[in-house]
Amino acid sequence: MRDVFHDELDDIGDGVAEMIQLVAAAMQGGTSALLDADLLLAQKVIDADTRVDALRVDLEDRAFQMIARQQPVATDLRVLVTTLHLVADLERMGDLALHVAKIARLRFPDMAVPEEARDVILQMGEVARSLVQKVGEVVEGRDISLAQAIEAEDDSMDALRRKLFTLVLSPRWSHGTEAAIDMTLLGRYYERYADHAVAVARRMIFIVTGQRPVAPTNGLTAPLG
Amino acid sequence: MRDVFHDELDDIGDGVAEMIQLVAAAMQGGTSALLDADLLLAQKVIDADTRVDALRVDLEDRAFQMIARQQPVATDLRVLVTTLHLVADLERMGDLALHVAKIARLRFPDMAVPEEARDVILQMGEVARSLVQKVGEVVEGRDISLAQAIEAEDDSMDALRRKLFTLVLSPRWSHGTEAAIDMTLLGRYYERYADHAVAVARRMIFIVTGQRPVAPTNGLTAPLG
Repeated sequence: MRDVFHDELDDIGDGVAEMIQLVAAAMQGGTSALLDADLLLAQKVIDADTRVDALRVDLEDRAFQMIARQQPVATDLRVLVTTLHLVADLERMGDLALHVAKIARLRFPDMAVPEEARDVILQMGEVARSLVQKVGEVVEGRDISLAQAIEAEDDSMDALRRKLFTLVLSPRWSHGTEAAIDMTLLGRYYERYADHAVAVARRMIFIVTGQRPVAPTNGLTAPLG
Repeated sequence: MRDVFHDELDDIGDGVAEMIQLVAAAMQGGTSALLDADLLLAQKVIDADTRVDALRVDLEDRAFQMIARQQPVATDLRVLVTTLHLVADLERMGDLALHVAKIARLRFPDMAVPEEARDVILQMGEVARSLVQKVGEVVEGRDISLAQAIEAEDDSMDALRRKLFTLVLSPRWSHGTEAAIDMTLLGRYYERYADHAVAVARRMIFIVTGQRPVAPTNGLTAPLG
């Protein structure tokens, strides 16, 4: 009985790992579609999100059923409840990558991103990639020190977003209001993607330590995502 | 034993009701602060969010402890697991109201919202108020028909957001890029606030019926928030 339970838990873990891979690929694809004005790739990212949504529904159901049938306690219960939250964060990360791809599709055949904003968006895509890769490593190996490095990378995403605002508000911005709106939304999507990555990392700290991490900014106990 | 359990469940329900009231008041306050350039009110909304965050942490812990200690089954378990999700949505709604208040504070003593956008923002605030009021009624009375009306109101929020874009992109827009960015972010905050209200309503349908609602747009089973 005990072994079946942990086999099922491992299966759920595999599903979470698949979701992480999918939302990582989605944001990389979304960023490439954006910077290359690649309509086919944008559409591929948009279509692929149904798989992420389906995985969330499936994993949420399985975690719920395991709690209901097996009545786990202590760490096992904490893992399952945390899984319910993780899959919600991951599904949302998929949505945000989809939103990025939709901006690429909306502006095709034009480039959504003006030349002088390319570098910032490229860096945001790179930070997103690095963040979600670390999240994957945290979830697989439960390395808390990596979870803390993720908070630092989230700060660099915030700095990039401010850089993007500075560009758009500069008197040299010559791309009008529509492009300004696109950059505002893109900045928001990347920032929220990073926030959800941090939330996943915090959840993992909670699983390993049983302690809620303290939010670095104000010393208050952080809501877990 | 059974009675103590349901007393505790009622206490959690009271906490959820308090969170709903707080995030309703926050968005009403945020909207007023925005439209009246009221710095004191904006600051009040920003400060009040710590109570929402604390309630979330407290309710999440209590729901988790009840699952761990009492090992509830069937509907009771579904209510508790749903509570974990509800409080996450409500905390996020509080954050979004705080973001609205922060734009009011950032632009003070100026008005963040140009004259021709006032009416749309006013209406978005009104739809937000009506939505969250219905959410409160659904949670208290578990009226599924109301949960479905909430989906329709979410559509009107989306329409208002499109109207705001149309205004900002009109050749008559004379308020520059900074105000365009503010309107873009405000539109996003109200839209996401409404999305989370819909997510809460969907969760309540799930509690009452045990069935995941079908997303109206594509016929797919909806992820629950």
